Amino acid sequence: MKNAVGREIPDSLLVDGKEVYQGKNYMDGKYLQKAAPRTKRYEPPRESKIVDSIVQALQDCGAKSGMTFSFHHHLRDGDYVVNLVMKSAIEELGLEDLTIAASSLGAAHDPIADYIEAGKVVGIQTSGIRGRMGEVVSAGKLKTPAIIRSHGGRPRAIEGGEVHIDIAFIAAPTSDCAGNCRGVGGKSDCGSMGYAMTDAKYADHVVVVTDCLVDFPNFPASVEAIDVDAVVVVDSIGSPKKIASAAARISQNPRDLMMAENVAKVIASTPWFQEGFSFQTGVGGPSLAANLFLEQYMDQRGIKMGWAIGGICGPMVELLRKGKVGKVIDVQDFDLDAVRSIHTTPGHYEMSASQYANPANKGAFVNKLDFVVLAALEIDTGFNVNVLTGSDGVLRGAPGGHPDTAAGSKVCIIVTPLVRGRMATVCEHVVTVTTPGDCVDVLVTDYGIAVNPLRPDLVQCLDEACIPHVTIEALKEKAYSLVGRPDDLEWEDKVVAVLEARDGTILDVVRKIKPLTL
Amino acid sequence: MKNAVGREIPDSLLVDGKEVYQGKNYMDGKYLQKAAPRTKRYEPPRESKIVDSIVQALQDCGAKSGMTFSFHHHLRDGDYVVNLVMKSAIEELGLEDLTIAASSLGAAHDPIADYIEAGKVVGIQTSGIRGRMGEVVSAGKLKTPAIIRSHGGRPRAIEGGEVHIDIAFIAAPTSDCAGNCRGVGGKSDCGSMGYAMTDAKYADHVVVVTDCLVDFPNFPASVEAIDVDAVVVVDSIGSPKKIASAAARISQNPRDLMMAENVAKVIASTPWFQEGFSFQTGVGGPSLAANLFLEQYMDQRGIKMGWAIGGICGPMVELLRKGKVGKVIDVQDFDLDAVRSIHTTPGHYEMSASQYANPANKGAFVNKLDFVVLAALEIDTGFNVNVLTGSDGVLRGAPGGHPDTAAGSKVCIIVTPLVRGRMATVCEHVVTVTTPGDCVDVLVTDYGIAVNPLRPDLVQCLDEACIPHVTIEALKEKAYSLVGRPDDLEWEDKVVAVLEARDGTILDVVRKIKPLTL
Repeated sequence: MKNAVGREIPDSLLVDGKEVYQGKNYMDGKYLQKAAPRTKRYEPPRESKIVDSIVQALQDCGAKSGMTFSFHHHLRDGDYVVNLVMKSAIEELGLEDLTIAASSLGAAHDPIADYIEAGKVVGIQTSGIRGRMGEVVSAGKLKTPAIIRSHGGRPRAIEGGEVHIDIAFIAAPTSDCAGNCRGVGGKSDCGSMGYAMTDAKYADHVVVVTDCLVDFPNFPASVEAIDVDAVVVVDSIGSPKKIASAAARISQNPRDLMMAENVAKVIASTPWFQEGFSFQTGVGGPSLAANLFLEQYMDQRGIKMGWAIGGICGPMVELLRKGKVGKVIDVQDFDLDAVRSIHTTPGHYEMSASQYANPANKGAFVNKLDFVVLAALEIDTGFNVNVLTGSDGVLRGAPGGHPDTAAGSKVCIIVTPLVRGRMATVCEHVVTVTTPGDCVDVLVTDYGIAVNPLRPDLVQCLDEACIPHVTIEALKEKAYSLVGRPDDLEWEDKVVAVLEARDGTILDVVRKIKPLTL
Repeated sequence: MKNAVGREIPDSLLVDGKEVYQGKNYMDGKYLQKAAPRTKRYEPPRESKIVDSIVQALQDCGAKSGMTFSFHHHLRDGDYVVNLVMKSAIEELGLEDLTIAASSLGAAHDPIADYIEAGKVVGIQTSGIRGRMGEVVSAGKLKTPAIIRSHGGRPRAIEGGEVHIDIAFIAAPTSDCAGNCRGVGGKSDCGSMGYAMTDAKYADHVVVVTDCLVDFPNFPASVEAIDVDAVVVVDSIGSPKKIASAAARISQNPRDLMMAENVAKVIASTPWFQEGFSFQTGVGGPSLAANLFLEQYMDQRGIKMGWAIGGICGPMVELLRKGKVGKVIDVQDFDLDAVRSIHTTPGHYEMSASQYANPANKGAFVNKLDFVVLAALEIDTGFNVNVLTGSDGVLRGAPGGHPDTAAGSKVCIIVTPLVRGRMATVCEHVVTVTTPGDCVDVLVTDYGIAVNPLRPDLVQCLDEACIPHVTIEALKEKAYSLVGRPDDLEWEDKVVAVLEARDGTILDVVRKIKPLTL
């Protein structure tokens, strides 16, 4: 069945009430019967929940084959916990048929590819999938299709019972003996623990893995002891250098700076650029640079930003310290400046993934966002964006908060160079739709700006501000004239990944790529 | 059927898996299938949830006869919100057969007695019940027996689905237009909003009632916008003078001070009085005075308190400011010092009722408590305590956190004068068992100290510290010799209130008192 972004979704996937994507607010106003875990009662005074090993924790929580284990990705490319747990479960306890439900997976998790190939890991639910894991899944080696969700779609699916977590593993920079966890104060600090919060509330069992045990009570707690069954102390939960980079440097590339300036110009041309406006930006070169130019416009107009959300990095913390933004609400930290700031800089607060972006609660932060600036691997003439699959059709990205912020914000701006290497970024049809075109408003490239025809109000804003813009078709033609029209990818029938829209409908599927024959 | 504290529980109450009380850790280790609400999805950008009136909010949330509305009691005797909502529901919308599920009810809620007499309110679930409401319920005028729970038993019952909240009303000193609530920053500040947190997460619909609207986002939020359907702005949510009293004054009564000193002596004689110990005290005269004497012992030994929990008042905040306690974790504030301190004094944090005292989660704070000092209306020779019914058998109290802290703490000390007026406080059988004797360790009175024979370790501590103590029977005999043995109360068969133990079993029932015939 064809969905609202023109993708053919196999009928075999449309079971148990699953529907195809039907537009960005199709589910609005419907009721959701939330799910709930089955949890153990701990009544008597108990001094400590510390157990000797991950194996012991798994046994105490009744781990068995066929279960779903969850993880969060605040330790990013430095994470050791996914591999430690899966190794204990598979190699020490001999468990099989396991599903990993992670908020994201990345380069740190190459070893999991072996467990997929060996048939021990049979399901993957994640936002990001990259490296060897992306390759083996794209090659059709995972027993069931991977399920790819946005950062808002994940808590929706957990709260709605579509993902039932048997055991959640919390990688905790600090924990006390009862399991109160924080992302600060240890040797592997990650700052916000926003993606772990829903897991801890909805999993039947919760195991904290930490490398820094602190005095009880570790407060204010990001994950609360009342949800934790066991605490395991390991040598190291991650590589600090890869968890948070040093301060994200703002691009000095003139092309990036030019695009960033145009992004700020577009923002400043709209009526929502006013005292107290709200803002989110990604950490890519031109996105981050947009902060700088935006600050200049704010100073010129004598206005301040009310609040900013997102994955947070140093430049936003700097704006907070300078008093140019009122509050920074933080689901994940990208650099050490942000890690050091959360819980200490007044106005810099933590939020859960559900508060950030869940479309099925009563109003996430993204719903009130004025502007978001986002990157893209590809964007097509329907303004559909792909941030998941490479030009070769292999899984190597993550929707992250992209579809959520795009859908919720008043103005969603995609900033990307027109071509990358020999590939057109603006194209006729993206390989995979990860953010539907009805959520994307403006495209800023190094060869010009295009406005989504669904937003005539924004066309008028740009015209009144004398900001030139062209059709997205013209940008696509320009891109094709520079690097040529790409050959169509050749796919097999087998679906290797299902891409859920944030509301739970099916937005697209990724099929097995046909092996290259020379 | 007779339960573990010797009370006869009518078989008619033992339905739907309900059991009689069988000892303090009978439920430990069992699994609980948690309940979950049915909630509305709000996807599109939405600027505000503010509605014009409580009536409008009720209508938007589908209010109808037969529903259960929940409330929290942080505004204490100053609360206007329960009466405002019930008046709108009953007098303006004509709703009937309503149940009130409140964390406590008090003198502010006398008007609800009329709705009970008129048959509009047919169910009451609460911790405290006093004033006219206590009288009409005791007189058998409520259609169903009132259900009385401890502060830990309430979140247990909500999370376990025994109480399904149709609409939760959050009395919020400040809220933003999306419903992020805090207990500080307004004109009716209450500090902690700990008792409201479970309601907001488990109710189908949530309505915030505030008298101080603040900028979005009102962070860090005690109740989160993601759970809120509507925000109503009213002139006043309560009478500030009755919400939080001026600093609770420590008793100067020599009898109270003597008892308080003995409480501190008992504490200091035990092995848990060591660096980092944990403590909770009530706000009654001798309980609060115990803080002072305890500080002297701490100074003498050169030790500090690790953490304190509870309803918090000024003297504990003062200890925190002096660096004599590490952290104060706060579910409710009793005076303005505490209200002003939470969220501002470093180390003074808010917690939910579930974190505080729920016996059915994976370990509430009370589970790790070393010492608790509590009051009693009556205590019998089985160390059973009554804090609910007066000597006339009428409902005029609240179990509150009494049964929870008594069960969880290592040393539970009851401090009470031997007689009050012409009534013996120490007696043969309390009118109602609200805290079972197996949870109570030491009784300190103005006529002597008694140790529960279940705690020979504490007998030894007192003996080694040369603290004289007697049997509780001796104290009872002394009390009876002073004021006489009380006449037995005369009851009718009708059960007017069911007292649940914190674990959900039935601890006692309160029957209709026989009208006085002269």
